[in-house]
Amino acid sequence: MKRVAVLTGGVGGAKLVLGLQHMAQPVEISAIVNTADDFRHLGLHVSPDIDTLLYTLSGKANRAQGWGREGESWAFLAALRELGGEDWFALGDSDLALHVLRSARLGSGEALSTITGDFAAKWRITAKVLPMTDDRVATWLDTDVGPLEFQRYFVEQRCAPKVSRIEFRGADSARAAPGVVEAILGADVVLIAPSNPYLSVDPILVVPGIGKALRASAARVIAVSPLVGGKAVKGPTAKLMGELGIAVDNDAIAAHYARLIDGLLVDNGDPVTPGKIAIGRTDTLMTTIEDRVRVAEAALALASE
Amino acid sequence: MKRVAVLTGGVGGAKLVLGLQHMAQPVEISAIVNTADDFRHLGLHVSPDIDTLLYTLSGKANRAQGWGREGESWAFLAALRELGGEDWFALGDSDLALHVLRSARLGSGEALSTITGDFAAKWRITAKVLPMTDDRVATWLDTDVGPLEFQRYFVEQRCAPKVSRIEFRGADSARAAPGVVEAILGADVVLIAPSNPYLSVDPILVVPGIGKALRASAARVIAVSPLVGGKAVKGPTAKLMGELGIAVDNDAIAAHYARLIDGLLVDNGDPVTPGKIAIGRTDTLMTTIEDRVRVAEAALALASE
Repeated sequence: MKRVAVLTGGVGGAKLVLGLQHMAQPVEISAIVNTADDFRHLGLHVSPDIDTLLYTLSGKANRAQGWGREGESWAFLAALRELGGEDWFALGDSDLALHVLRSARLGSGEALSTITGDFAAKWRITAKVLPMTDDRVATWLDTDVGPLEFQRYFVEQRCAPKVSRIEFRGADSARAAPGVVEAILGADVVLIAPSNPYLSVDPILVVPGIGKALRASAARVIAVSPLVGGKAVKGPTAKLMGELGIAVDNDAIAAHYARLIDGLLVDNGDPVTPGKIAIGRTDTLMTTIEDRVRVAEAALALASE
Repeated sequence: MKRVAVLTGGVGGAKLVLGLQHMAQPVEISAIVNTADDFRHLGLHVSPDIDTLLYTLSGKANRAQGWGREGESWAFLAALRELGGEDWFALGDSDLALHVLRSARLGSGEALSTITGDFAAKWRITAKVLPMTDDRVATWLDTDVGPLEFQRYFVEQRCAPKVSRIEFRGADSARAAPGVVEAILGADVVLIAPSNPYLSVDPILVVPGIGKALRASAARVIAVSPLVGGKAVKGPTAKLMGELGIAVDNDAIAAHYARLIDGLLVDNGDPVTPGKIAIGRTDTLMTTIEDRVRVAEAALALASE
């Protein structure tokens, strides 16, 4: 069976992994997930991208909302508000179980990778879900309102501040989590999900062991562009590219991943200047499950060229 | 206004304090609450007796159930179970807000007494709710199945194990929380609630600063017997007394508090041998709010004799 490693952030990457899972020809999937968005909130360790993977791959994700669980209830948040607790980050009643149990197990010395693997097994997820590292890495943004930790920027401030610099604190000394290097070295294809290259994929790439494994791997490396019609499907990618002085187009994406990828999959409607990198095309907007399978198959087809 | 300090465990004491609050003649109330039942569960600091006071005095308690909140939902616990988390201690979705916020604030260095005071203020509770101590005291029981921390015995094992010895770990070196000694020294009357004398009241009495304040106080000290018809209204009091070789009657209760109290309020139907301690009588079963007011008034009347 073909082995595919996927470097992924949250929503876009989870859709691609789901597409890989539903292909007619089954593949062995290792999702290597960004944890630089992880943060402590009310004393709880929240791992937004891992949770999005777990919810999406187990069929529990709230698709309309784009985050959290389907059929969620909010009694905790209402009670927290009564008591004067911080309510800018919405923690649903069911969602809390992940955070509370993860925090308790981390507190008793277990590794994030072990806990994540157990959760995935409990929910019968067949793909391997691997945090990029068990060490603490945190995305901080220099903005026009001062330095902000990622979730403060993303959720509390709704991406409104202007970003001048992105920093992944702790990344230099972080070790790849167990299974990550093996997944990359053993892969036939490495996919870079259509997640935010600067905020969601870069923190994975800067973990030294992961960068080293990617350079050493014989796998074809294919990125799926996060742009559709010259815009990001979701989140602050396009706004951020503008603020960082980067053109919002696939040439910029190709340049960003230049030394790493063998091919870039772009949307049918989007231009890209021919260069050294192989270009694949499909409709990359992933709304239905068929869309996700089509994008996954197109990415693997590009790898086989 | 008459100042009343109440030494209290959970349910029975909360009813008495509610009775004091609803008397025609208002009194200034300080509830000094047992915290030796506190424990960490899933990394969260749970304070069962404080929570019972907070819920009861703010009108949020689930009266039928005897613990937790009215109108509680259980999505968290269901999700926790899916993930293989320990579910023997039922944490409701709304109830979790207390535990999560308290744990987060304790984790950032705040004192339990400060946090409890803030929660009581948010819920407009007029009585002072004071944890007996901000230090860690833990009730452990020697039983026929080995040593058990209180909640394991009380909730998980449903009081089934036979108890041979009770220990309050940390009590010897615990300091009374801010306001506790002042409440006792400034009180006109100190009431001992009809809580379990051995499990809920003793841990308060053994905190050195509290014992010393009670000996120094000029207040009349009145205990309300936890026995009604020769049985405890709730919980393991009678079973425990039997296992510890203590007769289940008011003479034993009077003897237990002998050097501390000036009077004992007992149920109309229960015998007690005349002795040095003044005896008061009323129907001590507290089902309705009128019952609670009657018991509170009878206890204060006994103090005035």
